[in-house]
Amino acid sequence: MSPFTGSAPRTEEWRHLRLTRDQDVGVATVTLARPAKLNALTFGAYADLRDLLAELSRERSVRALVLAGEGRGFCSGGDVDEIIGATLALDTARLLDFNRMTGQVVRAIRECPFPVIAAVHGVAAGAGAVLALAADFRIADPSARFAFLFTRVGLSGGDMGAAYLLPRVIGLGHATRLLMLGEPVAAAEAERIGLISELTGDGRADARAAELARRLAEGPALAYAQTKALLTAELDMPLAAAVELDAATQALLMNGADYREFHAAFTEKRPPKWQGR
Amino acid sequence: MSPFTGSAPRTEEWRHLRLTRDQDVGVATVTLARPAKLNALTFGAYADLRDLLAELSRERSVRALVLAGEGRGFCSGGDVDEIIGATLALDTARLLDFNRMTGQVVRAIRECPFPVIAAVHGVAAGAGAVLALAADFRIADPSARFAFLFTRVGLSGGDMGAAYLLPRVIGLGHATRLLMLGEPVAAAEAERIGLISELTGDGRADARAAELARRLAEGPALAYAQTKALLTAELDMPLAAAVELDAATQALLMNGADYREFHAAFTEKRPPKWQGR
Amino acid sequence: MSPFTGSAPRTEEWRHLRLTRDQDVGVATVTLARPAKLNALTFGAYADLRDLLAELSRERSVRALVLAGEGRGFCSGGDVDEIIGATLALDTARLLDFNRMTGQVVRAIRECPFPVIAAVHGVAAGAGAVLALAADFRIADPSARFAFLFTRVGLSGGDMGAAYLLPRVIGLGHATRLLMLGEPVAAAEAERIGLISELTGDGRADARAAELARRLAEGPALAYAQTKALLTAELDMPLAAAVELDAATQALLMNGADYREFHAAFTEKRPPKWQGR
Repeated sequence: MSPFTGSAPRTEEWRHLRLTRDQDVGVATVTLARPAKLNALTFGAYADLRDLLAELSRERSVRALVLAGEGRGFCSGGDVDEIIGATLALDTARLLDFNRMTGQVVRAIRECPFPVIAAVHGVAAGAGAVLALAADFRIADPSARFAFLFTRVGLSGGDMGAAYLLPRVIGLGHATRLLMLGEPVAAAEAERIGLISELTGDGRADARAAELARRLAEGPALAYAQTKALLTAELDMPLAAAVELDAATQALLMNGADYREFHAAFTEKRPPKWQGR
Repeated sequence: MSPFTGSAPRTEEWRHLRLTRDQDVGVATVTLARPAKLNALTFGAYADLRDLLAELSRERSVRALVLAGEGRGFCSGGDVDEIIGATLALDTARLLDFNRMTGQVVRAIRECPFPVIAAVHGVAAGAGAVLALAADFRIADPSARFAFLFTRVGLSGGDMGAAYLLPRVIGLGHATRLLMLGEPVAAAEAERIGLISELTGDGRADARAAELARRLAEGPALAYAQTKALLTAELDMPLAAAVELDAATQALLMNGADYREFHAAFTEKRPPKWQGR
Repeated sequence: MSPFTGSAPRTEEWRHLRLTRDQDVGVATVTLARPAKLNALTFGAYADLRDLLAELSRERSVRALVLAGEGRGFCSGGDVDEIIGATLALDTARLLDFNRMTGQVVRAIRECPFPVIAAVHGVAAGAGAVLALAADFRIADPSARFAFLFTRVGLSGGDMGAAYLLPRVIGLGHATRLLMLGEPVAAAEAERIGLISELTGDGRADARAAELARRLAEGPALAYAQTKALLTAELDMPLAAAVELDAATQALLMNGADYREFHAAFTEKRPPKWQGR
């Protein structure tokens, strides 16, 4: 399944999150499953997200990932005791280790070779809001409420790449307001300012995210993966380099099976059978 | 007319598009004129767009350019047979040649020394959507429908700079959705998310684009040209460099005729007579 | 008050603007106070803004700054006689000196270690619009009207960093339209496109700006200052560098007093007493 593997074994059991797979279609679903604590994140949960995304990125069979939360909300952010309390006892080197790990999770979401869909209901706060922000799609139901709470606990609103990502998603003015003040953004405002990709009916975020994941996984998955890679990379590139990267990427994909299949299907007036390569 | 010309002759006849000029005011209009095929682009049309923009950029008399489509829509993108079918027979080096050419057209639209106004009615799909995206203004009527179809044919949504430009126009969230899924965006949504500059009445896009082009051509054209150049360049520059570029540019224009004319006209309580220099 | 001072004396009297301070809470208010001229800017006003922001940046006691205009509007931009007329008599080196100074004001607003809140009523035109644009918050009442007038006087719309900042606030499409055409943007449109942070009731911009400034000054001011610094810096950084900067910043603040205080207050079920460090 994984074309290039070395000696490293795969993790057999993820203790800090729930992973389910629909192998037939290539959809993986990661559920934050600590509902009694509104899925508050722990050191272990961050480490598992980092490691899981790395492992899934080496598997060709994963073509779309859903990130969801069990219970009343998506994710309330770092656990007040298990993270905030615990970090008060860490020395500077360990604090840096922790904060680098959280940033690695965001980079992994942005850089993994498949689209990531956050299914958001209820609260997406602090680190939970940034996890959703890093995803390619944010499917939210009317109960969704985003809050970049960092300044409310005495920290910088620029956490885990939020001061990089949020202005690029909703513009610098809205991003400044949200990161500086940490005020909650309800679903309607989130839709108006471009923070979410789709507003669903009540309680429908998980179902719509699953539908979208299936559609992406069954489609031209390599084209989707490259689209994501270019969107991520070209935020940091000048126009001249971006068009050169686009040219090389399209030349590559024009040698691929799906492009050929599109033309055959179009000519034969039938739907294409995508292979994702 | 063109201050620096060498040995290269000008093209006498553009076979793959229609060029009209209003020499008196300095407006050029490029019309994609293959209405039976919804103005689908061919290898020749791309090459003509690239070469025409280069030639017009050397003419001081061109002060604004309108890009329009004849018939039922603006442009349906690359022709299914003449481009998609034909590229299936090209080797890797030729595929790169083709994709670099399309990127050169986008760079030429962004970098030419006059504003470009896309007049959009009906479909603007695939490469047609990117041509409109690269323009400085998108004047659309209610029939306009944008679709970045690339993944629908098995290719990357990052085509011709779209993964660079679209997040900078409408934000990363909307851009991911549009480039990944290739779904159509109707005029009302395009207006809401900032994809178009102006929504006109039914069938009024060409007329409004012509009005705007005339206004720009009759105005302080060098000021407009520099505004465009800075908007293009400063997307790729840090703030400190941008303010330095602005300072040099304004110092330059403060030595120009139009700035002096503004002050004289203001003092004499009359409208300025712009010379565009 | 200022931890690192050398030989340079502080300015005792600002002749071209009005500075008031609420020392108890750490709010400074700068008022453009030339109401008979709609607060049109002069060479002296620019120089005072540049010098004042530098001086305030060295004072730990300033935790939030309000920028407001006296009389009928916020600021009509550069004075037609005292700047436009005067610059017509300057040589090239002096023109560059002037335009660099205006850019330095914008950089100072973006880079000072406290949030800047523009309180906008009536006209914010030309350089006045850019001063508001450079602020972290734009609190506007329904009379507010923004106009990036530069091309109307024969100059580049990219003035004082506007061609850098505006696309990052409202997207490239809207920014091109506003900077190229110089047309006025009323408060309702400004809210719709993300140009303002908050639309207040009639005549309430100054009061709301003061409330927000007090709230910021009384809060975790170091966290706010770092949030601002990261928002400014990360516009010019790639994602990988941004998450590293975030990690170092959070590690720093996790060693700070306010983070510890948040946890203590949360545990003791009381509101935190922020110290701003």
